[in-house]
Amino acid sequence: MRLPADTLINARWVIPVEPQGIALEHHSVVVVAGRIVALLPTAQALAQYDAAESVDLPTHALIPGLVNAHSHAAMSLLRGYADELPLSRWLRERIWPAEARLMSDEFVHDGTLIAATEMLRGGVTCVNDMYFYPEAAARAYLSVGLRASIGLVVIDFPTRYASSADDYLDKGLAARDRLRDEPTLGFCLAPHAPYTVSDASLIRVAALAEELDLPIHTHVHETRNEIAEHEVAHGSRPYERLRALGLSSSRLIAVHSVHLQAHEIAQMANDGVSVVHCPSSNLKLASGIAPVNSLIAAGVNLALGTDGAASNNRLDLMGEMRLASLLAKGVAEDPQALSAHQSLRAATLGGARAIGQDAAIGSITPGKWADLTSINLGAWDMQPCHDPVAQIVYVAGRDQVDDVWVAGVRRLARGALTTDRLTSLDNLVCIWGNRLVSSTSV
Amino acid sequence: MRLPADTLINARWVIPVEPQGIALEHHSVVVVAGRIVALLPTAQALAQYDAAESVDLPTHALIPGLVNAHSHAAMSLLRGYADELPLSRWLRERIWPAEARLMSDEFVHDGTLIAATEMLRGGVTCVNDMYFYPEAAARAYLSVGLRASIGLVVIDFPTRYASSADDYLDKGLAARDRLRDEPTLGFCLAPHAPYTVSDASLIRVAALAEELDLPIHTHVHETRNEIAEHEVAHGSRPYERLRALGLSSSRLIAVHSVHLQAHEIAQMANDGVSVVHCPSSNLKLASGIAPVNSLIAAGVNLALGTDGAASNNRLDLMGEMRLASLLAKGVAEDPQALSAHQSLRAATLGGARAIGQDAAIGSITPGKWADLTSINLGAWDMQPCHDPVAQIVYVAGRDQVDDVWVAGVRRLARGALTTDRLTSLDNLVCIWGNRLVSSTSV
Repeated sequence: MRLPADTLINARWVIPVEPQGIALEHHSVVVVAGRIVALLPTAQALAQYDAAESVDLPTHALIPGLVNAHSHAAMSLLRGYADELPLSRWLRERIWPAEARLMSDEFVHDGTLIAATEMLRGGVTCVNDMYFYPEAAARAYLSVGLRASIGLVVIDFPTRYASSADDYLDKGLAARDRLRDEPTLGFCLAPHAPYTVSDASLIRVAALAEELDLPIHTHVHETRNEIAEHEVAHGSRPYERLRALGLSSSRLIAVHSVHLQAHEIAQMANDGVSVVHCPSSNLKLASGIAPVNSLIAAGVNLALGTDGAASNNRLDLMGEMRLASLLAKGVAEDPQALSAHQSLRAATLGGARAIGQDAAIGSITPGKWADLTSINLGAWDMQPCHDPVAQIVYVAGRDQVDDVWVAGVRRLARGALTTDRLTSLDNLVCIWGNRLVSSTSV
Repeated sequence: MRLPADTLINARWVIPVEPQGIALEHHSVVVVAGRIVALLPTAQALAQYDAAESVDLPTHALIPGLVNAHSHAAMSLLRGYADELPLSRWLRERIWPAEARLMSDEFVHDGTLIAATEMLRGGVTCVNDMYFYPEAAARAYLSVGLRASIGLVVIDFPTRYASSADDYLDKGLAARDRLRDEPTLGFCLAPHAPYTVSDASLIRVAALAEELDLPIHTHVHETRNEIAEHEVAHGSRPYERLRALGLSSSRLIAVHSVHLQAHEIAQMANDGVSVVHCPSSNLKLASGIAPVNSLIAAGVNLALGTDGAASNNRLDLMGEMRLASLLAKGVAEDPQALSAHQSLRAATLGGARAIGQDAAIGSITPGKWADLTSINLGAWDMQPCHDPVAQIVYVAGRDQVDDVWVAGVRRLARGALTTDRLTSLDNLVCIWGNRLVSSTSV
């Protein structure tokens, strides 16, 4: 008598990530009601389960879906809009003025839809987003089926979205109240950065985070300049101030963390802070290179992010894994720094832990949601394959991603999106491209 | 009365690279007998030329074919064979022993065939190769139609290929004599590195380079360790010795050049040396990061290379362009360092100049060979496009490469290889993978 199952996924390799460092050969994942119920050798799985659907992946590695732990998804519409500028000028001269002209519920929905589709096709199953109009973003995520942790942004200047720090928080929390029953949506409080948010707002954020059990998603020490200006304005380094105001805890998602002193790394480790490393964005904006090796040595939880498409310019977490591993080795002059296995962990379980969801996603573990990504290692240019994890990180690109499941629903099948929104996406990009051009030519 | 032409390629953008910094809209390239005869607005081209074949690229950028200025192509068969080791152990414990067991005419032919196909599909039209059995490599290049500069290797220890430095040179020069009339093949003298080649051999190489008008392709200052050991063994830094022996000239292709002192950069600029930057390989082997910004500031000709698949592990020059630009910005903390236009130049004309072929290839210039690559910027995830060159370097991947011509022959058409060798490649990889596994398990 075989047990019923919704889906049986039979893969050449299954890489559970937890425990780290292993690749199981000829194993199967059993999915029931959107969750992983078993991981076992394929021969046993076929004998024990009677599945409604069976998916064979004879040349693939099945990994936990990638978690993009930092993005501003809707900025896909601003891709390439401000290349080759430093962060401060990039923000003040290009991005903020463009947002002031264009930002709206529709802009956020459309931009998020494009970004979510790009991420899904590249093997990402969950994104930690920070932008405006959270309900517009939520509509986009729900329509393509990407899991999202939506940042409820707080910034101490008015935008088209909100007029004051309290207005941002009130609007964000109201959106959360309306969306909190969606199983694929989560929320963070997202004060933009220490240099754009006042003490009073940060204190309110810290209190709300405790009260509502929410992570705090913020930019920390991205550039030297921002630290120097903060020292002048506040008499302290930004992370020092966050810590003094009670924000340094296991709730804190410290994005970038490019410029850290040794005592700050020790404090982050001690307080259980997660760091999101965004190597492409940090290089492209010339912010520098985060001390990933020191963070890992200290025991800080490391996650990976793409940042937004205006500073990267592709939302490609496979590429970030490769770059993170290569960069860590080159900087440390140690070829074992950030191994392929460590990079894959950062891109999956590390991200899940950062957003407080490591009990639900981030590894192929019975009981967790079936958020899964298959990578085809079978083509001749992926050979020979001595270690599938090394192959994923050092050889494969996102074009080798073949299948993606979010909560057991197959969103990408053999490289094709199961919901075809591509025609409408072409139109969206064209519309916004034209608006952007016409608004800049004035 | 219209002029006859073989092929008219009508592109949304043509990026000639020379002059640098421009993207011509709605332009056409006219090809006759394998060469570019004109570059002009499409409307004029259609009025003036009667072409046997017309190719419309309505959403594409047409660029000069990429020049991969450093590879060990046949090492595609050793892909992933020695990950996460430093160069010295990587060579001595893994690569050299594997080569001692496996290397043969057949190994080089098969490995080169796989690498050449991977490169061609990724937009590369010319590779500067350094490996053993040059005639085996040549057969592979001729069969897939990739232009190659074949390094005639010299190393001061015996291998299965040759017994002594003189034997290497004699065999290499004999191969060149037999192949010198092939229009898509060129040759370099390729002393492996200062630490593996004696004074006597280097002096003979320098003399032969003058006599036969050949470039000299060698590894220079890849790791700190190799410099330190060379100082002990020879009482000088490796480049200092190359220079003292007469090898520092516009013929010299100094691959890697990761660790250079200011006076060495000035000497390279003064002597007209070309440097091949291989950022992925240098990071992955933990060699360090080459001083690209200083080299460019000094006026050194910069080219880009993938290195071999055992140290990268993908032969993806599009990825190297992106990485080179990002890395240069991050290291210099200057977002304008190695702009997209500079990176594209390094990956095309810079490589052509390094191998002494800048009069024949490397830019879309009438009179040069029609070595051309099209990149499709039309998909929704490539939008919006403010600058096609930035889009190529920062957004596109090699999966956006749609067409490749070498000497006017279309080798890739709409993403598909025109000579389908994929079935035989699958077999080749499988055969060699098995031999590699069986030889290591002994």
